[in-house]
Amino acid sequence: MLSLYHEFLEKTKTDDWVKVPSFKSNRHHIQGFKLPLGLEVTSDKNDWRIITRCTEVEGQGYEYVIFFHPREKKSVCLFQPGPYLEGIPGFAHGGSLATMTDEAFSKTAYLAGEGLFTLNFSIKYKNFVPVGSLAVLNINVEKIEDQKMYLSCIIQSRDQQTVYAKASGKEVFSSRCSWKKSHPNKSDCGCRRAHH
Amino acid sequence: MLSLYHEFLEKTKTDDWVKVPSFKSNRHHIQGFKLPLGLEVTSDKNDWRIITRCTEVEGQGYEYVIFFHPREKKSVCLFQPGPYLEGIPGFAHGGSLATMTDEAFSKTAYLAGEGLFTLNFSIKYKNFVPVGSLAVLNINVEKIEDQKMYLSCIIQSRDQQTVYAKASGKEVFSSRCSWKKSHPNKSDCGCRRAHH
Repeated sequence: MLSLYHEFLEKTKTDDWVKVPSFKSNRHHIQGFKLPLGLEVTSDKNDWRIITRCTEVEGQGYEYVIFFHPREKKSVCLFQPGPYLEGIPGFAHGGSLATMTDEAFSKTAYLAGEGLFTLNFSIKYKNFVPVGSLAVLNINVEKIEDQKMYLSCIIQSRDQQTVYAKASGKEVFSSRCSWKKSHPNKSDCGCRRAHH
Repeated sequence: MLSLYHEFLEKTKTDDWVKVPSFKSNRHHIQGFKLPLGLEVTSDKNDWRIITRCTEVEGQGYEYVIFFHPREKKSVCLFQPGPYLEGIPGFAHGGSLATMTDEAFSKTAYLAGEGLFTLNFSIKYKNFVPVGSLAVLNINVEKIEDQKMYLSCIIQSRDQQTVYAKASGKEVFSSRCSWKKSHPNKSDCGCRRAHH
C-alpha cells in the first residue's frame, strides 16, 4: 500500500490530484465549508467519529487514503481492511467494502459539487478481499442529472488482475435533501436534533 | 431498545424465535456447523473480529441483536448505532446501515439454508437515523431460486412511522460459491490463504 500511496502523493505535486484529509469526524471535514440546510455543527465534547475511524488501533480497521482529481471528477481510494473488519474468517466483510465505497462516494460527491447525501447504493461482489491486502477503489462521476450525481466504483487488486467488487451510487445535492423532501413543513433538515 | 429486546426474548420462550448469538468473530459462529468448500477455521492467536464487533467500547459502535424465526425464515435485528458510526454529524453513516443489513442477511441466509456469501446488495436511503436511536430491521427471505437466496429488508423506527431505508440482497449457497466459480481449477475456496 505504501508505495502506491507515495506514487499518488507525488502526483499531488506534479498533477492535479488532491489528498483528501482524513479527520476523525465529519465535523472537521466540513469546517470552513458553506453549510446547507441549517446543518449546524457544534463542537460538543462527545466522542463522535466518522465510521471509518471507529477503531483507532493502528492497522486493525479501516486503513485508507482518498485522492481526488477535481478537474476529472474522479477519486482513487487505497483501502487495506484490517482484522477487525472480518466477515468470512480471513476476509474483509462485504459491509466494509460497502462502507468504504459509500464514504469515498460521498467525499467525491461533496468535493465535486456539494453532493451531500447518498440516495441509493448497490454493490456486486466478485471475489473476497483477504484481510490485510490492498484494495484499490477507482471512483468516477458518471453523470450529473436533475440535481443528482451518479457515481461508479470498481474495486480491484493492485495489479488489476482481480476484481473484488463493482458498485454504483446516487448522491443528491443539498438543495434536494431527501430529508427535506419527506418533511416539507420543517425548515431545516433536523440535523441539530442529534446534538441534544 | 431494551424493552423491545425483552419482548423478543419472551418470544423465544413461547414462539419459535431464536436469539442468534453474537460472538466476537465468525470463527465462533461457525463452530460446530458443517463447513463447506474447505473453509477451515484455525484458532490462531490473532485478534480477528467480525466487523460489527470492531469496537468494544460499550454503546459506541454496533449495538445490536438478531432474532431468527426458522419456520418463517425471517429475522428481526434491533440496531442502535453509536457515535463511532457517524456519517453526517449526529447521524449514522449509510455504511453502518449497509453493514448491519448485510450481516443480518448473511446470518439469516446461513441459518435458513446454509447460504453463505453475498453476491450483491442494494440499499435505498429514505431518512437519516439519529445516532443512539433504535432502528428495527425486518429481514425476509423472498425466494430461493437456482441455488440463490433473495432477501429483503426494511429498516424503520420502532413505531414504524419512519422508514429509514429499504434493502435487498442475493446470497449464494456454498455449492455455488462465487469464488469457486471464478477459480474453477482450484479445489477449495482459498479461505485458508488468509491464515498465513
